[in-house]
Amino acid sequence: MTDCLGDGAGDMTPMDLYEKLTSQGDTVRTLKTEKAAKADIEAAVQLLLKLKVDYKQVTGQDYKTGCPPSECAVSQDNGPAAAADGEDMVDPWNVSTTNAKGVDYDKLIVRFGSSKIDQELVDRIERVSGQKAHRFLRRGIFFSHRDMHQVLDAYEKNKSFYLYTGRGPSSEALHVGHLIPFIFTKWLQDTFDIPLVIQLTDDEKYLWKDLSLEDCHRYTVENAKDIIACGFDINKTFIFSDLDYMGASPDFYRNVVKVQKHVTFNQVKGIFGFGDSDCIGKIAFPAIQAAPSFSNSFPQIFKGRKNVQCLIPCAIDQDPYFRMTRDVAPRIGYPKPALLHSTFFPALQGAQTKMSASDANSSIFLTDTPKQIKNKVNKHAFSGGKDTVEEHRKYGGNPDVDVSFMYLTFFLEDDEQLEKIRQDYASGALLTGELKKRLIETLQPMITSHQERRKQVTEETVKQFMTPRPLDFNF
Amino acid sequence: MTDCLGDGAGDMTPMDLYEKLTSQGDTVRTLKTEKAAKADIEAAVQLLLKLKVDYKQVTGQDYKTGCPPSECAVSQDNGPAAAADGEDMVDPWNVSTTNAKGVDYDKLIVRFGSSKIDQELVDRIERVSGQKAHRFLRRGIFFSHRDMHQVLDAYEKNKSFYLYTGRGPSSEALHVGHLIPFIFTKWLQDTFDIPLVIQLTDDEKYLWKDLSLEDCHRYTVENAKDIIACGFDINKTFIFSDLDYMGASPDFYRNVVKVQKHVTFNQVKGIFGFGDSDCIGKIAFPAIQAAPSFSNSFPQIFKGRKNVQCLIPCAIDQDPYFRMTRDVAPRIGYPKPALLHSTFFPALQGAQTKMSASDANSSIFLTDTPKQIKNKVNKHAFSGGKDTVEEHRKYGGNPDVDVSFMYLTFFLEDDEQLEKIRQDYASGALLTGELKKRLIETLQPMITSHQERRKQVTEETVKQFMTPRPLDFNF
Repeated sequence: MTDCLGDGAGDMTPMDLYEKLTSQGDTVRTLKTEKAAKADIEAAVQLLLKLKVDYKQVTGQDYKTGCPPSECAVSQDNGPAAAADGEDMVDPWNVSTTNAKGVDYDKLIVRFGSSKIDQELVDRIERVSGQKAHRFLRRGIFFSHRDMHQVLDAYEKNKSFYLYTGRGPSSEALHVGHLIPFIFTKWLQDTFDIPLVIQLTDDEKYLWKDLSLEDCHRYTVENAKDIIACGFDINKTFIFSDLDYMGASPDFYRNVVKVQKHVTFNQVKGIFGFGDSDCIGKIAFPAIQAAPSFSNSFPQIFKGRKNVQCLIPCAIDQDPYFRMTRDVAPRIGYPKPALLHSTFFPALQGAQTKMSASDANSSIFLTDTPKQIKNKVNKHAFSGGKDTVEEHRKYGGNPDVDVSFMYLTFFLEDDEQLEKIRQDYASGALLTGELKKRLIETLQPMITSHQERRKQVTEETVKQFMTPRPLDFNF
Repeated sequence: MTDCLGDGAGDMTPMDLYEKLTSQGDTVRTLKTEKAAKADIEAAVQLLLKLKVDYKQVTGQDYKTGCPPSECAVSQDNGPAAAADGEDMVDPWNVSTTNAKGVDYDKLIVRFGSSKIDQELVDRIERVSGQKAHRFLRRGIFFSHRDMHQVLDAYEKNKSFYLYTGRGPSSEALHVGHLIPFIFTKWLQDTFDIPLVIQLTDDEKYLWKDLSLEDCHRYTVENAKDIIACGFDINKTFIFSDLDYMGASPDFYRNVVKVQKHVTFNQVKGIFGFGDSDCIGKIAFPAIQAAPSFSNSFPQIFKGRKNVQCLIPCAIDQDPYFRMTRDVAPRIGYPKPALLHSTFFPALQGAQTKMSASDANSSIFLTDTPKQIKNKVNKHAFSGGKDTVEEHRKYGGNPDVDVSFMYLTFFLEDDEQLEKIRQDYASGALLTGELKKRLIETLQPMITSHQERRKQVTEETVKQFMTPRPLDFNF
């Protein structure tokens, strides 16, 4: 345990062994490439084998290139992001699975040590808020949480909370998948009538991508327009660029430094898989994503209060940042943020991967025309139907792997209609073409009205949302 | 070379080997402590020995606990701070030598790859500035430089420059040694009539020491008063706390992130000796000390210009930060800062160590009374005199190891008087008590008048110096 917290220089942690193994593997490869003396290669291979035996002994796992040991982080605050589990890989930069149904989320809950959003919690949210649960809750799209019951306990005693979500603005073009956390966050804001902060991590994108600071900042402003178009309440929402807000708020920087003092390189190595050749900006960045979880990072909103509870709706791949944050919080005198995790939005080509903003055909973009939407769905949406109409009528389709059906799960509000589509598709009564038509008819008006709302977002509106200022906050 | 720049994950760098060795050494110790099976211990020792042979082969040096390999950083931009050279150890946090004369600075110049400030350069500074060189230059107290000739070339063509120096405010009490860079920087400011920025790294002190953010910030304000008392021109000087200025200047943060993107963990490991159990704040900090080297970190002073040359007067132990900065500068489109390096100010007990603000008897503090000064010098100043008056008269004293004489070198303005003291002490004509008296008579009025000037520094004056604002700057 102590090793995981970074001061166990004396012992060989699983991570030490992992690194020795990785480096020894490199040595062997180098020797072979350079056609070194046979004896040298043999000695290096011997050492490699010995290290593998040690590794198995210490971790109980076989060594696997590119997969840091999971045990250390698991015992700390529940699991490294990048651990391999079967074939699923989930961390803030990579999500992959070989299963057409997508990532196995039940396994992920176990691995990350979070809690399932079960029917009881959904019912409780409805009871406490007096609102029907959002379809993302009803359908398990937000499927996992941390401390949501505590948030509700406090809320019932008139102790309110605030919302924090965000986005890394790596391109001007958002796709529908990017909207998921914002659609849900807007619902939470409306339902609980609470303030919201939205972090746009332009500094992160600059550090990770081959982009200029100016590009990253420009994307931030463009992305902010799409976010604003989701309908957030300007009196309750603060959207900020890290590049701007860090230089505008000594309190925010103070919290960043506090987190940076209490997290070691060993920890971010275990949690995020950072290595020695990563730049120091990446290594320190997790503290910047952590800081908005603490209410005194926003003195203009919370009047210096440091104990306002934070709730973070986000995709599950962002959980590693907040596991780290929750580990640090009590050590610097702050409450741990609570979390609500969503599943990934599947690519048109299938649920094996997360959508990519850089592949225009992998997703429906918020700038697509009705015609583009129609063509993309018809041409690229992976189908769970049978090869011929005859077979489909006879055996039925498989909605579980059908991307059009999955998209309807996200965007079709009516539960009964959705269930009927599922049954008809599974029975063969509904053909793939007909299913795709339903999706096209759902997406087209949704995207068109988003575009209309976005057009109405002026530079002035963006500036207002992005100005540090008091919000409606009375608790 | 490439390994040093951080992308050589495939090869075994000297640092990789060093780390493996260190970790293997720990393994052996742990096994022995835990009384592990004999075979296990033997296997671990065998591996340790093998790694030592590899290390010698790769680096040409014997492995030495606590001394990371110097070669990698040397080939990069000239030498790791913490390399051991004979017995001298110099890095931003530790300076030690076993030589009573102090660190061997000629060797340090070779190791760091800087240039000696020779008579020719001193003469040229006098010629260009039209002023007699400061005693710190005449006496080799500022002994090393980088690119000072370039600075003067440009200055002669009416291209001016700005000064950047700083301090880590770890305590309220400054000693006379802390004044050296400020005394000299004031002379440079007056002589060349140029703007100056002074960074107070309260964030660094928070990260390194067991202090609260509030304490670090309080020390900053107190230290600023002593700095202001050195007589800086308020119209040409901006003093800033990192904790404040980071949150007040998006341009400063942008430069920090630029540097952070272009420096890897491998590099800071090589340069500063950081390890895996260091906090991510320490690892990222060097970028914050680098950023003031670039003029567009201060748009309010330089009106957005990014190419105003920077000259940094500092003690040689700070050079690692600026070697790193100079390595990064051209890659992010900025000029490299030039440097002037000072020797260390010796402790009263002798030149083997740097003074310590935490040991009241190791130095003369700026708060000492005339009586305290007298007692400290008489009681603690290491003497190069002989044991008895008779022997001293016969054989003479040794001014090279005599701390009172060293201090006079720093603070007695008159060259002829100083030379006479040296000769008289070496011949035995001047006794240790008499030498100490000369020092006491030099220090007492100097400290008293500093205290008087400091008293006149109001909170309002501090606030003015520390407010981001335009300075007199016209070039």
